Amino acid sequence: MIKGNIKFKDLVMKTRSYRRFKQNEKIRPATLEYLIDLARNTPSARNAQPLKYVYSCNRQKNNEIFSCLKWAGALPDWDGPAEGEKPGGYIIMLLDAEISANPYWDPGIALQTIMLGVAELGLAGCPIANIESGRLSKMLELPEHLDICLVLAIGAPGEQVTLETLSGENVDYWRDKEGDHHVPKRKLNEIIYGKWV
Amino acid sequence: MIKGNIKFKDLVMKTRSYRRFKQNEKIRPATLEYLIDLARNTPSARNAQPLKYVYSCNRQKNNEIFSCLKWAGALPDWDGPAEGEKPGGYIIMLLDAEISANPYWDPGIALQTIMLGVAELGLAGCPIANIESGRLSKMLELPEHLDICLVLAIGAPGEQVTLETLSGENVDYWRDKEGDHHVPKRKLNEIIYGKWV
Repeated sequence: MIKGNIKFKDLVMKTRSYRRFKQNEKIRPATLEYLIDLARNTPSARNAQPLKYVYSCNRQKNNEIFSCLKWAGALPDWDGPAEGEKPGGYIIMLLDAEISANPYWDPGIALQTIMLGVAELGLAGCPIANIESGRLSKMLELPEHLDICLVLAIGAPGEQVTLETLSGENVDYWRDKEGDHHVPKRKLNEIIYGKWV
Repeated sequence: MIKGNIKFKDLVMKTRSYRRFKQNEKIRPATLEYLIDLARNTPSARNAQPLKYVYSCNRQKNNEIFSCLKWAGALPDWDGPAEGEKPGGYIIMLLDAEISANPYWDPGIALQTIMLGVAELGLAGCPIANIESGRLSKMLELPEHLDICLVLAIGAPGEQVTLETLSGENVDYWRDKEGDHHVPKRKLNEIIYGKWV
């Protein structure tokens, strides 16, 4: 399953949010379980480990999940991936409120670990926060104590994503005429406020 | 600076919280800037990029930062690293409230990316949330719009940390007679609530 050894910085650079996928390339259950297992082995605040997971690579369930998601707030003219561009699988991250009401940084830690694993496998992921949670909870048959944190869409990459250097203050990502996706990032010296050496 | 190519899962397994360091091994400014640059290149909710950073590898400033931190809530008999065991550097993650009041998952995403980078370099890190924030803000000369999210201690590893399989519900980490640190993790089948394949 692993594509070979990598330099970590290269993997960080490859780990982008993709919103269009090659829908005909299936995602296997073992792949999704491998990714969840990566998250399982991350540090957790006070080691409480309050995160649980549901996954789907089932076509009908994927369609139900898809119907509860809103994609790409910064691309108002785009309704999300069209038929043929949809992700092959989903991991839904849940907070078990019986374990902890506050997950601290755990969702971000787990999310980025899964995203890096997705990139290592040559796949593409997109974290989605804009969710019809009530409807999705019903579709996933979740008990009351499991709250949806986020949905991570996973598939074979169906678009190009490039980092750009931010100039000015408009951080909106954009698509060029070829449909490639561009993401402007602040410079290093802009984000380092102070240093003591 | 990079120690060579790695398998990502091996890196995830190596990425543990360390609380004792080899204090005589210095941390270089370039190392801390490399780690912050990793975080700079991570996905950010709505691409807002509201996180800023301060770092220190200066002995006196390190002591001031150290005086504002509380270590290891689950080890009540231990006051934190003794002289000789303290970290060689700190990265302090800040939320720029002028950019966004809500960082979503960005702190966890950035934190774990830095922690993985720390592990790749053969170093050790510990995220710390229990902070005297008001006092630390003054010591770091922070303006009002920069709120402290967390402190990440970084140094050469001065202890052994081992993952264990959790049995029962007590997730507290512990130290054995040799002083090695053990962290129990839930099993994969405990954290996967449901699947559709």
